[in-house]
Amino acid sequence: MLPPVHLDSQSQTPLYRQLFEQLRDLIHSGHLARGEKLPATRELAGSLGLNRATVAAAYELLESEGMLKGHVGRGTFVEGASETAGRVDWERAAPAEPVALPTLSLPEGGISFASSRPADDLFPLEEFRRTCREVTEGAGIQSILQLGSPAGYAPLRQWLLRQCEGARETDDILITSGCQQALDLLQRVLIQSGDTVAVEDPVYPGLRNVFASAGARLAGVAVGADGIEMDALEQTLRRERPRAILVSPNFQNPTGATIPLAARHTLIRMAREAGAILIENDIYGPLCYEGDAIPALKELDASGDTVQIGSFSKIAFPGLRVGWIVGPRPLIARLTQAKQWCDLHSDQLSQAVLHRFAESGRLEQHRLNAVKAGRARLSAVLKACRRHLPQGSRWTQPRGGMSLWVRLPEPLDAGELLPRAERAGANYLPGKVFAVSRAQPGALRLSFAGLPPARIEAGLAILGEVFTKELERVRAVRRLDSAPALV
Amino acid sequence: MLPPVHLDSQSQTPLYRQLFEQLRDLIHSGHLARGEKLPATRELAGSLGLNRATVAAAYELLESEGMLKGHVGRGTFVEGASETAGRVDWERAAPAEPVALPTLSLPEGGISFASSRPADDLFPLEEFRRTCREVTEGAGIQSILQLGSPAGYAPLRQWLLRQCEGARETDDILITSGCQQALDLLQRVLIQSGDTVAVEDPVYPGLRNVFASAGARLAGVAVGADGIEMDALEQTLRRERPRAILVSPNFQNPTGATIPLAARHTLIRMAREAGAILIENDIYGPLCYEGDAIPALKELDASGDTVQIGSFSKIAFPGLRVGWIVGPRPLIARLTQAKQWCDLHSDQLSQAVLHRFAESGRLEQHRLNAVKAGRARLSAVLKACRRHLPQGSRWTQPRGGMSLWVRLPEPLDAGELLPRAERAGANYLPGKVFAVSRAQPGALRLSFAGLPPARIEAGLAILGEVFTKELERVRAVRRLDSAPALV
Repeated sequence: MLPPVHLDSQSQTPLYRQLFEQLRDLIHSGHLARGEKLPATRELAGSLGLNRATVAAAYELLESEGMLKGHVGRGTFVEGASETAGRVDWERAAPAEPVALPTLSLPEGGISFASSRPADDLFPLEEFRRTCREVTEGAGIQSILQLGSPAGYAPLRQWLLRQCEGARETDDILITSGCQQALDLLQRVLIQSGDTVAVEDPVYPGLRNVFASAGARLAGVAVGADGIEMDALEQTLRRERPRAILVSPNFQNPTGATIPLAARHTLIRMAREAGAILIENDIYGPLCYEGDAIPALKELDASGDTVQIGSFSKIAFPGLRVGWIVGPRPLIARLTQAKQWCDLHSDQLSQAVLHRFAESGRLEQHRLNAVKAGRARLSAVLKACRRHLPQGSRWTQPRGGMSLWVRLPEPLDAGELLPRAERAGANYLPGKVFAVSRAQPGALRLSFAGLPPARIEAGLAILGEVFTKELERVRAVRRLDSAPALV
Repeated sequence: MLPPVHLDSQSQTPLYRQLFEQLRDLIHSGHLARGEKLPATRELAGSLGLNRATVAAAYELLESEGMLKGHVGRGTFVEGASETAGRVDWERAAPAEPVALPTLSLPEGGISFASSRPADDLFPLEEFRRTCREVTEGAGIQSILQLGSPAGYAPLRQWLLRQCEGARETDDILITSGCQQALDLLQRVLIQSGDTVAVEDPVYPGLRNVFASAGARLAGVAVGADGIEMDALEQTLRRERPRAILVSPNFQNPTGATIPLAARHTLIRMAREAGAILIENDIYGPLCYEGDAIPALKELDASGDTVQIGSFSKIAFPGLRVGWIVGPRPLIARLTQAKQWCDLHSDQLSQAVLHRFAESGRLEQHRLNAVKAGRARLSAVLKACRRHLPQGSRWTQPRGGMSLWVRLPEPLDAGELLPRAERAGANYLPGKVFAVSRAQPGALRLSFAGLPPARIEAGLAILGEVFTKELERVRAVRRLDSAPALV
């Protein structure tokens, strides 16, 4: 007698596969014992309302796994679990994520504009070593090596809160394992599946993916020369009523755009009127190369409700995973609770080293060096764009940060051209990596901060040649196409 | 004209609160403008099918926030958003977790059996300092400080895979931010809301909470002297068909129990027959004080499907957050993808330091010291239990690890007695902290590995006195209770 089987015709899994899996489980669990006779395909198809071929396909799969056996004239019998039976089907148990990043394959020695990370040739290694010695030889080392607090290493938390211009009495701080974990914790605590979150479009894919995989609906708001566009945001707030707005007001990744002061006030007012939580990602803020720094949203927001994310990754050493969230105490308390179940607490050796690096003044000295180098690199990349990119190309004019955003003339497709650029010796990330809902096939991100000016110039010469050649080729084809037909 | 309002009578939020929130949002978003007249309470109650008092309560709340104003003889009008209006209600936006751990408040100098962590007086500080110097002065330091791979620091991954007895060709390894993150990533990739997961009962609360907060149904399986009970597990597998089984075969937290070899074979067979994913948490395995180590499930499982979690936290320095997962390649690939969106990658300085500490042989030397000290501490805690706990108490006989499990005679309640024990100068974690579904009011966990033998003896003398006194008091009351009524 066959135990009940439940098939779901709405499921993504084909019916024969559902039937196969359920029968296999019944055999594994002993509900169908060795020697037991199964109904004939026609009979089972009738009782389940299936096509006979569907049942036959499931039986064949089971037979191929040695779990069933057909005996001529007698019917189909359970053999039992085979060698490979009961093995976990990992592709099914842990299906791959739908969103995949492009595979880069730049030849050795190539010039990569693909990663928004600091220049490691600028790392102050001697100061770093001295800092490590001071920490490991200091009196606190025993407790640094012991289990710590989910909220973070207390001296670092105090130092950061003192430094944060926008922090007030009602705020607290949580140390996270980098900015990425800050985003993930905010998602866990504030967002429920189905909530709408307003984000910049284009945006850092690590932000988009964290919220998308949590089941949030992402409302992409266009980014212009002055950062997220206020008119578009206002429409989104009115139409979609997002639970949260995430913005990078300074040197946004990938565009490098900065929101001016007046628009920051507007943004704060709009968020408050819409009852949306305003989350400010300011990891590039300290890397201002031109003009004055503009006060952060956290500083400008009189209500104190803005949540601010920061990190050491862009201004010190990204291999040390230390970031933070500053926000109202009840939120930080809840995030700290969530953090405990994610990873207990952030690495304490790195927290202590970065704290010492910061309070000794070495971090500020290094930041000034990085700003000086960044200014030269920004100038080099803008100059090289003018010199090498084909006519009709447009690009942003960042005042800081690590990246700028290029739009190639139509019909060039930056994603299609990437393999050719890599073969020629340089790469970048195509715009589609950063898209929320607006495809920009001609767009690409150039991350310049990790490369010395001469490499920037050489890399753009390579890219410019690839793009220009392709544009000439396409235009030549078009000219041929438009020749009158010979009749 | 009032825009449509949608109330949910099934919601946990009272109807007046729902109405208040929706009207507030309409005012903030400008859908209800300043000066607009609201319907009378009776009229709105009628059209929404509500009690009039419900509407009146919502109006009063809005009035108290300055958003509405009543004018005698004319009706109720929108005033607009007030000072505090539009402020985020953080308690509502980020509600606290339901599961809270007990607050411990041991006086200064008290003896704590509450934390399952290594003894920091045993930390080999000089060896640690030397290791840090070697890493920071080594040729690889520049790339250690730079952004790393989500899978982990390659030399550490290779070293760990070579050390893992059960790892085979088809396996791979992911470095995690401690065992806690390993559990969280497994939950994210393998478990969907509503899935059942079989876990030991009692169990480490960090494991229970990770899976419970992901919406998994936890099926607690009793733990006996020989670890998770096989008969109970078999019933659970048959009845509940869990997606995964999580076990700590060696020196389980909190009981200290170990699964014997024969039962390990049974467990592997049962998991396979049930089609359940077997996850082995072996963070205490290297701390074996008595008898021979027993092969891990990962080693015994011929299919290769067992997933194993390990960590440096219990054998080296818990302040450095480095753990790992060994399992079949497709699973590790998927976990690595998930890890990237959690925190990009684990801290690279700590990975490099622990790798150097391990490959230099210093880790093994330290482990041997920790095992020697642990053996003396285990012996001390067992002796002190015999000497000080009241008659009728029972406790486990661990052969390694950091904890043992005490059951006090009825009617003692370890949770109720905790504040008294703390005032007397010693504490522990009561059994309820570890409960999945079986309450054991008399149970408590003693974590002994962090305390030298003399402190263990002194701490149990304190606890023994508190428990014995309470038992005497209760028995005296009972004797009085059972005296015949005077009539």
